[in-house]
Amino acid sequence: MTTFKSFASDNYAGIHPEILQAIERANVGHARSYGSDPYTDAAILTFKKHFGDDIDVFFVFNGTAANVLGMKAIAQSYHAVICAATAHMNVDECGAPEQFIGCKLITIPTPDGKLTVDLIKRKLIDFGDQHRSQPKVISITQVTELGTLYTPEEIKAIADLAHAHGLLLHMDGSRITNAAASLGIPFKQFTADVGVDVLSFGGTKNGLLIGEAVIFFNRDAGADFPYIRKQGMQLGSKMRFISAQFEAYLSGDLWLRNAGHANRMAKYLAEKISANPHITITQKVESNAVFAVIPREVIPLLQEKFFFYVWSEETSEVRLMASFDTTEEDIDRFADEINRVLPV
Amino acid sequence: MTTFKSFASDNYAGIHPEILQAIERANVGHARSYGSDPYTDAAILTFKKHFGDDIDVFFVFNGTAANVLGMKAIAQSYHAVICAATAHMNVDECGAPEQFIGCKLITIPTPDGKLTVDLIKRKLIDFGDQHRSQPKVISITQVTELGTLYTPEEIKAIADLAHAHGLLLHMDGSRITNAAASLGIPFKQFTADVGVDVLSFGGTKNGLLIGEAVIFFNRDAGADFPYIRKQGMQLGSKMRFISAQFEAYLSGDLWLRNAGHANRMAKYLAEKISANPHITITQKVESNAVFAVIPREVIPLLQEKFFFYVWSEETSEVRLMASFDTTEEDIDRFADEINRVLPV
Amino acid sequence: MTTFKSFASDNYAGIHPEILQAIERANVGHARSYGSDPYTDAAILTFKKHFGDDIDVFFVFNGTAANVLGMKAIAQSYHAVICAATAHMNVDECGAPEQFIGCKLITIPTPDGKLTVDLIKRKLIDFGDQHRSQPKVISITQVTELGTLYTPEEIKAIADLAHAHGLLLHMDGSRITNAAASLGIPFKQFTADVGVDVLSFGGTKNGLLIGEAVIFFNRDAGADFPYIRKQGMQLGSKMRFISAQFEAYLSGDLWLRNAGHANRMAKYLAEKISANPHITITQKVESNAVFAVIPREVIPLLQEKFFFYVWSEETSEVRLMASFDTTEEDIDRFADEINRVLPV
Amino acid sequence: MTTFKSFASDNYAGIHPEILQAIERANVGHARSYGSDPYTDAAILTFKKHFGDDIDVFFVFNGTAANVLGMKAIAQSYHAVICAATAHMNVDECGAPEQFIGCKLITIPTPDGKLTVDLIKRKLIDFGDQHRSQPKVISITQVTELGTLYTPEEIKAIADLAHAHGLLLHMDGSRITNAAASLGIPFKQFTADVGVDVLSFGGTKNGLLIGEAVIFFNRDAGADFPYIRKQGMQLGSKMRFISAQFEAYLSGDLWLRNAGHANRMAKYLAEKISANPHITITQKVESNAVFAVIPREVIPLLQEKFFFYVWSEETSEVRLMASFDTTEEDIDRFADEINRVLPV
Repeated sequence: MTTFKSFASDNYAGIHPEILQAIERANVGHARSYGSDPYTDAAILTFKKHFGDDIDVFFVFNGTAANVLGMKAIAQSYHAVICAATAHMNVDECGAPEQFIGCKLITIPTPDGKLTVDLIKRKLIDFGDQHRSQPKVISITQVTELGTLYTPEEIKAIADLAHAHGLLLHMDGSRITNAAASLGIPFKQFTADVGVDVLSFGGTKNGLLIGEAVIFFNRDAGADFPYIRKQGMQLGSKMRFISAQFEAYLSGDLWLRNAGHANRMAKYLAEKISANPHITITQKVESNAVFAVIPREVIPLLQEKFFFYVWSEETSEVRLMASFDTTEEDIDRFADEINRVLPV
Repeated sequence: MTTFKSFASDNYAGIHPEILQAIERANVGHARSYGSDPYTDAAILTFKKHFGDDIDVFFVFNGTAANVLGMKAIAQSYHAVICAATAHMNVDECGAPEQFIGCKLITIPTPDGKLTVDLIKRKLIDFGDQHRSQPKVISITQVTELGTLYTPEEIKAIADLAHAHGLLLHMDGSRITNAAASLGIPFKQFTADVGVDVLSFGGTKNGLLIGEAVIFFNRDAGADFPYIRKQGMQLGSKMRFISAQFEAYLSGDLWLRNAGHANRMAKYLAEKISANPHITITQKVESNAVFAVIPREVIPLLQEKFFFYVWSEETSEVRLMASFDTTEEDIDRFADEINRVLPV
Repeated sequence: MTTFKSFASDNYAGIHPEILQAIERANVGHARSYGSDPYTDAAILTFKKHFGDDIDVFFVFNGTAANVLGMKAIAQSYHAVICAATAHMNVDECGAPEQFIGCKLITIPTPDGKLTVDLIKRKLIDFGDQHRSQPKVISITQVTELGTLYTPEEIKAIADLAHAHGLLLHMDGSRITNAAASLGIPFKQFTADVGVDVLSFGGTKNGLLIGEAVIFFNRDAGADFPYIRKQGMQLGSKMRFISAQFEAYLSGDLWLRNAGHANRMAKYLAEKISANPHITITQKVESNAVFAVIPREVIPLLQEKFFFYVWSEETSEVRLMASFDTTEEDIDRFADEINRVLPV
Repeated sequence: MTTFKSFASDNYAGIHPEILQAIERANVGHARSYGSDPYTDAAILTFKKHFGDDIDVFFVFNGTAANVLGMKAIAQSYHAVICAATAHMNVDECGAPEQFIGCKLITIPTPDGKLTVDLIKRKLIDFGDQHRSQPKVISITQVTELGTLYTPEEIKAIADLAHAHGLLLHMDGSRITNAAASLGIPFKQFTADVGVDVLSFGGTKNGLLIGEAVIFFNRDAGADFPYIRKQGMQLGSKMRFISAQFEAYLSGDLWLRNAGHANRMAKYLAEKISANPHITITQKVESNAVFAVIPREVIPLLQEKFFFYVWSEETSEVRLMASFDTTEEDIDRFADEINRVLPV
């Protein structure tokens, strides 16, 4: 166990106390399994308050499943999914999309994790060529794996491009609450309203014990999702305990308090460490992530007390994540340690 | 929410208080994600106390995944898995083995959910015939989907048969604690010691919030399981909260108290309802399940207050499950209701 | 090389001379690959003369592919295909449907290889139950693996049942020409006209070198088939040589001469061998197959000179197939040999 | 039908007369199906004369299948295959590797279609990281999709690198005879002898009607290939007619005459068209392919009479392929046409 809180990942943090209390409250008597319970009904209603009534919502266990199963609902094996080269589904899901959907990922290098209309257009080729996987889905991550944000206008432009070519738009919203907190607008305004078809809505990284949601704005696409989820090994039997977490998370402002706090801590962290002239911040700090180049030789020293991941061995760039439970004190100590090993 | 506890399934029950306390205890500070945490180390050690050191243990979210991923580790797509026609993996996993492994299930009708050496032998054919899926795995369920039990001797005979033909033995132990409690012997004596190669070890049905384990006694078979689990969308990020549950479950006798109680309640239930001459118990009550024929016309009446599932519409046979939290009072009320609608 | 023609399978026969001549005629200069050639255009037109204009036709290499890819066009991985237990796709395709589609086969034992409305109805269950593979396709084989035939009325009844429940009807027509010859009606009258949605149309077993076709009467279902075929590794580069065979086969009456001859030879064979009182014909002889129980001890003696396959070791039942090149003399010799080893 | 021979692809050419004669010679009487015939035995022996006895050889229908099934024998779904971005399996197989193996392709941009030790080394990372597809296969194409060649030394260096890291080396030898003819050495010297583990050996592009072979030098890897082939829908019933082609192709020097001729025609073609100053040859002409930049505006004019494919719309680069039946006259006419539309 680390004695200090780490900056490794927002999934190093635990369960927010209000989430745990919600689980306890739901732990009463018997409830129907597999989602036919009042907790799940309530949680779905709460999602509809955020996203409008015209959606279908399904809970799954983790982000890999949310992404892969959501895309399986809209892609056949002979389709291709266009995504950033840094996309989690490309880099960190051990080939799950290829295995479970059978599709090809068409990956696009980007400087900041963000796809653009121009970048995508170059891949919108080969339609009707039977030798080639047919582009069918564009997948963007909000916030991106590099901590950057799409504006609603940027998302709309990509959605319009997708739809004009018969493609659908998938959003990996593993950290969607950080995006909403940073943009300062409701979820709906940068998802349903701008043309997202399927959304992975994350919970685990912002205070849940376990739980992600797949939301279909394109409801035809979601019609068979119950079978996809079950066959995808993601139908939880005691689902009330996932649903109760989402209810606690989204019915009030817990999601916003947590995400807003993590975002602020990231800004504070960037401010503090960039005061050291040996350190360069490499990406805009728009959410709860800070990317920075730190001199190679001190990284192991810092990691001993405050664990974090090296993003690129080549450039000595590291990723620092703030969580809902990161404190200014955690950051101050880390900054002190940096200044100790990298004297100004 | 049902006002009375149901007999529908042991997964209608909630979380045992000691399990929830363990989650709370683990909810301190940061811990490495994806299983590189001390809670997971401890839980694995606890499994080794039960099963011996020569095992590999991996946690997954649910029973479907435990079965499918455990079998994927030992079967190629051109292999066949021999199982009872009633096996959960055949009936209730929406084709997940076919989709995720690509293999064929060879299913055998049985009167009581139990495979036998004789039944299996008839399917040990077609070896070397390139037109046919090659038998590679025998999968048994302990306790079976019909609530019955294999003796250690029966399991050994099947394991020996499997190994003599180059097959491996998989055990779906979704309710393995009910088996151990009923047999009155350690887990090891009817798994590792008698030739089981891969085991799905269930937790959710006996008091956990969420959590199942895949145990490899054949460690070669498990060597690549980390990748299979991740690609199989079953690697939990905040794994400490699954591990902590298993630690609380298995380090003391909680698993045995829960399972033993559920088993006793099933016996009590069978006793009480079979006192009514209109009701016939159809399977041996060896675990926490009771199968009974109940006159068709009263089933909906009973289900209103005490939900349970009809196992066979054709024969009017129902399945009644006892849980760790079933009480004699629950059963007495149910028996009263039966006697009310089916006067002796 | 066998000195006598065998009764093992119609695929032991070679290439009909007219087919080989068609290949030679097509072997002139260059032609576009992958089916964009005039031979393929002509062959498709010829299929339309038989089946009507409202079809899509695609050529593949073998029967396994025709079945599996045709079904992949109409079934998702969470669907189930209902078929006879004896269906080639269940028994003799090494699990290809499970691997390539990911679906479950629901198999029905039959006495004669024929599904019936009553048999199928019992499997039309579990609709909407997320735990179960959803029935989506009924697959029948015409002629069946047991040499028997469906009447157009029987097919229509099954198609109507399928469509009434939202399922589609697939026909494995590996020996469809034998069916047409035996029924004495055009192909269309027992396929398109009675509700078949997708058809595997066989060529190899009746005189082609190589070549099968997948025909979609439900053209929506076939819209993406070019990608399914390519991804399914079944898009031939020098396709003109498959197309030219089909053109020669179907533009005149070659298919009918061959199939009619094989059917007549089967009848003659049944007549001759059933004259021996030790032999019992077990299935109606409606096509080019004869099923017969032959005393176990003489089978190896007979197989030495005239190879054939034992269908059931248990019952000592054998399958004898006539081909387009089987002669009365072949049969007379075989019958003589039978009478020699099994004196009357 | 094109009146002139095209330079589109070597699969626009027909069947070499000697191959067709071999098919005719094999068209005698009955032969066992699915490869248990003397023609197949003979063809396998002939392969062994070229590659040594310590191999396993299997025939399949096309190059996509040879690649995908050969790799399936050595890669699990959680593995990654490293290949050039231009590799046929990446670009022109409609996602078949992803669908049928479930694996990820790690693609490397190259100037000339050739992987190098340095390029590959950068991708030999992530070993043991459960979040990442594990590199397991390196696949090279000989000759490459850009007509270039690996020397035996280059292949050995890649094989050594592969084996040092626990990977296996796959070679897509769709045009392997062009490589052997160009290198002027036996097949064995740049495959088995330098560490290739699995080879796709092409036939169709150099005069066969249909037929490719998968050769395992690593025989353990091939042990289960009969099932992989059958399940992969690539087991031909009348296999004698594929085998007889390979026998005719490889028992004498037909393969060499054809490939050597095509290679010479490519050199002649490059010489003739590069005489026109408006045309730039872009790749070394080491086999039967010529890559050239041709002014954009004249391409459609040229394609009318002599069809060929544009390789890159962006750079106006075209691919011109010579075949076994390309003549100097064909080339002279093409060069004349070029000089007509692009006056010097």
